[in-house]
Amino acid sequence: MEKQSPPGRRKESRRKFLGDVVKGLSAAAVGAHLDRSTFAQNPQPGRPSIRFVIHGGAGTIVRGQMSREMEESYRTELTRALSTGYNILKNNGSSLDAVEAAIRIMEDSPLFNAGKGAVFTSAGTNELDASIMDGSNLKAGAVAVVKHIKNPISLARLVMERSPHVLMVGDGAEAFARQQGVKLVPQEYFYTERRWKELQQIKEEEKKQKSPQKKSEHGSQGQPLTEGKHGTVGAVALDKSGNLAAGTSTGGLTNKKFGRVGDSPIIGAGTYANNRTCAVSATGDGEYFIRAVVAHDISALVEYKGMPLNEAAQAVIDKVGKLGGTGGVIALGRDGSITTPFNTEGMYRGYVDTNERMVIEIYKD
Amino acid sequence: MEKQSPPGRRKESRRKFLGDVVKGLSAAAVGAHLDRSTFAQNPQPGRPSIRFVIHGGAGTIVRGQMSREMEESYRTELTRALSTGYNILKNNGSSLDAVEAAIRIMEDSPLFNAGKGAVFTSAGTNELDASIMDGSNLKAGAVAVVKHIKNPISLARLVMERSPHVLMVGDGAEAFARQQGVKLVPQEYFYTERRWKELQQIKEEEKKQKSPQKKSEHGSQGQPLTEGKHGTVGAVALDKSGNLAAGTSTGGLTNKKFGRVGDSPIIGAGTYANNRTCAVSATGDGEYFIRAVVAHDISALVEYKGMPLNEAAQAVIDKVGKLGGTGGVIALGRDGSITTPFNTEGMYRGYVDTNERMVIEIYKD
Repeated sequence: MEKQSPPGRRKESRRKFLGDVVKGLSAAAVGAHLDRSTFAQNPQPGRPSIRFVIHGGAGTIVRGQMSREMEESYRTELTRALSTGYNILKNNGSSLDAVEAAIRIMEDSPLFNAGKGAVFTSAGTNELDASIMDGSNLKAGAVAVVKHIKNPISLARLVMERSPHVLMVGDGAEAFARQQGVKLVPQEYFYTERRWKELQQIKEEEKKQKSPQKKSEHGSQGQPLTEGKHGTVGAVALDKSGNLAAGTSTGGLTNKKFGRVGDSPIIGAGTYANNRTCAVSATGDGEYFIRAVVAHDISALVEYKGMPLNEAAQAVIDKVGKLGGTGGVIALGRDGSITTPFNTEGMYRGYVDTNERMVIEIYKD
Repeated sequence: MEKQSPPGRRKESRRKFLGDVVKGLSAAAVGAHLDRSTFAQNPQPGRPSIRFVIHGGAGTIVRGQMSREMEESYRTELTRALSTGYNILKNNGSSLDAVEAAIRIMEDSPLFNAGKGAVFTSAGTNELDASIMDGSNLKAGAVAVVKHIKNPISLARLVMERSPHVLMVGDGAEAFARQQGVKLVPQEYFYTERRWKELQQIKEEEKKQKSPQKKSEHGSQGQPLTEGKHGTVGAVALDKSGNLAAGTSTGGLTNKKFGRVGDSPIIGAGTYANNRTCAVSATGDGEYFIRAVVAHDISALVEYKGMPLNEAAQAVIDKVGKLGGTGGVIALGRDGSITTPFNTEGMYRGYVDTNERMVIEIYKD
């Protein structure tokens, strides 16, 4: 067990710490853009350099369709998450701490489909999934279909560190949370007007269709799921000790039924980290990412085929595309290389470049 | 959609069919033993030969500790499942049909930890997981934590064929089942005296320990889970069209808490099939199999490193062992090669050899 202090105190001290690092951030660095999705730099021999990459979901994010104000909000929140994680790494923090802290910030923001900003299920509830993985020992934790957990990424970490299990779902996961001293929140916490309207809009569209029930019930894996109704947040980190970590958190699919679970809590699909290769967090049509075992496939191409990380990640996104799925990944190599391929119009993403400039990107071009 | 008839009628006609194929089986072939866990034979050019392999779980299965009567029961049930699947393939049936039919037989038997013979959770309930994958198109279906489904493997197949989703859990999965005309069974259906006694025995052991709660709550992924409390069934098939399929079904872990889910319903971990490489079904300490992404890792070693299937499967079981986990896999290559490595004392398994003899094996030696 790496953390000995009780959860309550841990959370409190971490909050304070996060506040400090955000305050200490160079404001000049915020908003710098670099128009390429891949770069690589080998760390100096014997001294691994730190790296941090985040995403806030991929989908139909088209330039000109988003208000300037909305875009600024996204950039601000992504910058806050990015700088928080990066500063943890700079201050000798672990890659796991950086990943968890950045994802908590995105979970607490109403902008992203995770935590507070989670979309609504068909029944008008919010069901959250998350997972985290430690590349140094392949330990992992995940939760799925939790309804009263403010920060599912932190519960996933507790599953990893304080239970012999990897995946806990539903009420059982929440019973574990209570036992660990995690305060549960009422479902109302996850209410946001924007997400509620999205659900109503989709339900209206369903009604307009002649036989919507039949269509949704008899859809097949050959048909792409509707874009723009999902989203995910994630982070990958390389710390000073050379350890990789990856984490992913989501509110799932708007209007989802039948206890559907996507790729976010699935180790190997939505999340994977292995010090031998890379750390990966995915976002997109979860079904296709599960079938393509996306995160592990990228790692396998690097390890077994000796493929450079950017080629491996692009190859796997191409496979997802051929199956009919859309989305993207952020991937971080053990050598510090970064790549963020996606086959959608946009993906909210950010990383710190080799000059310590924070790069936030949204669109494809 | 391959199947058009309603589930009720499908089930009925399948039952009759299964009865016929079992009756038509050569009794002389039953019980033949072949003491090797790997063999390979290339099919004749242009005419892929059919192959079928099953398992009924791995664990502390020690020769001499099992009564002759009990061993015979296992051999009989395994033979029935094996011959049923094999005869479907012989009669031009699909690999998916063979996998589903054989797993249904093992689910209906009280001997295996799946379906009828499922172990009990800490709360005295039964929670079932299953998954199936079609190697020809990478479609997949899975269910987890279902409590009223007689044959979870068939529900997993319905998820694959009649929904746009891959994984459904809990009540939601059961709502989908009802909508598809699947008859739900009461929890009492899963009661067996043997499994109930196992739960009581484990609870007694917990009480005897000084601080059992604390121990189980603060276990970590470094500690191996107790052997002999889990089990799984699975099947892999290669049909006359050269299509691979894999399926896995389980009742989970005796005395499990917190909605724990293992590797069986996780595509890439407990189940994977890909016509380019192989079909795999796993059994063992699920947590370690998830962390090692076992089934997909075997496929990746074959595809990207050009490793023979038996070496790939053994290498991945060795990785699981190094992490601290126990269990095994059955794996079937696109070329018809078969391998069944495990690092436990035994694994219930069976396959049909190239002379159409049915081989049932239980112990390591």
